[in-house]
This record gives sequence, structure tokens and C-alpha cells, in this order.
Amino acid sequence: MQETRKTPCYAVIFTSTQTDTQQGYTEMAARMQELAQQQPGFIRMESVRSPEGKGITISYWQDLPSIRGWKENPEHQEAQRLGKQKWYRDFTIEIAKIESVSHFPQD
Amino acid sequence: MQETRKTPCYAVIFTSTQTDTQQGYTEMAARMQELAQQQPGFIRMESVRSPEGKGITISYWQDLPSIRGWKENPEHQEAQRLGKQKWYRDFTIEIAKIESVSHFPQD
Repeated sequence: MQETRKTPCYAVIFTSTQTDTQQGYTEMAARMQELAQQQPGFIRMESVRSPEGKGITISYWQDLPSIRGWKENPEHQEAQRLGKQKWYRDFTIEIAKIESVSHFPQD
Repeated sequence: MQETRKTPCYAVIFTSTQTDTQQGYTEMAARMQELAQQQPGFIRMESVRSPEGKGITISYWQDLPSIRGWKENPEHQEAQRLGKQKWYRDFTIEIAKIESVSHFPQD
């Protein structure tokens, strides 16, 4: 496999476990995805959740200031507050610099 | 939230879509998890798969040589070959340097 993306970028890795209270979650998650896409520096987002309520969402950004801008977005901050209060038992947020990328099948 | 892990580390982000042929996959995935844990430099692994067959697995490593060692492990190489032949429609592998980590609830 060859490395195919030459531009460096950053990822926010959000690993979470849901609570039993998921009222309003689906709508908020959809809204956050829509909002992130409008944010400067957004590249793309991948999200997977298991039936047991464990999830990994990775959003990709052009640089660290873009990630800071997203974190500080007022509507996103309200979602973060609700997430801690209602939807997430626990979560981890990691900021990572993507150093290489390879695909199968190759591009 | 406070940043809680001070030691830099690296992650391998494996994002995949399964084929309809999953014979032998579960056993191999369990074996690879066991094998990775025995590999020098291994820290931990997170894995989530949706009912639709989309998955994200993130393994964390102390440094880049540890990741190279895991990639070149002969039994892992055979699993990679079988994965391309049978189990994965497509996948992406990203190597990332973890720059900061925060948890909720805080440690």
C-alpha cells in the first residue's frame, strides 16, 4: 500500500460510552455533524457506534486552530455540556497529528 | 477537562468496511488482539464495529519502531493478506501522533 495523502492534518479522536438516556442524542449528533462541516478547516468525519453503546468518532481538520475553533463554537459547547450531563457515561478526546495514510484498495 | 497523559505516543487508526464473507474473521481478530498485546511497545487497543459492518480500531504504541514491528510480525502479515483477500471491502490505515488527551469524568 502506498501513502496517498501528502498534506499533514489533525484528527480529533472521540471515544465514548453512552448512558441509558439517549433522548435527543440522535438529533444533536446529526446537527453537530452538519455544524462541523460548516466550520473552517473541517476535512471529514468518520463515526462508528456498536449496539452496546460504545462509539468512536474521528473528525479531521486542517490544523490545530481549526480544532480550537470547533471546540469553542457556542452551539457545540452547549452540545458538550448536554453530553456530559445526559448522554455519555465516559469519553476520551485525543488530538492527533496524522503522519501517514494508506488505503486499500489503492487510490 | 484536563490533559491527563503526558507521555507522547502513537496510534494506528484502522477504518474498515467488511465484505459479506466473514468466515474466520472473529477468530483472527481475537488472535490479532492477543498478538498485538505481546508486541513490544504496545499500549492499548480500542475497537468498535457497527451492525452495518463499518469498523474503527485504534491501537496505541510507544513509538514508530513499535508500529513497524507490529506491521512486520509474520502472523500479522498473514492476517493482513487474508483481510485483503476475504474480509475487507476497503480500509484506511493512518499513523498518528497523539498530541493531547483528556477524559470525562476526569481521572
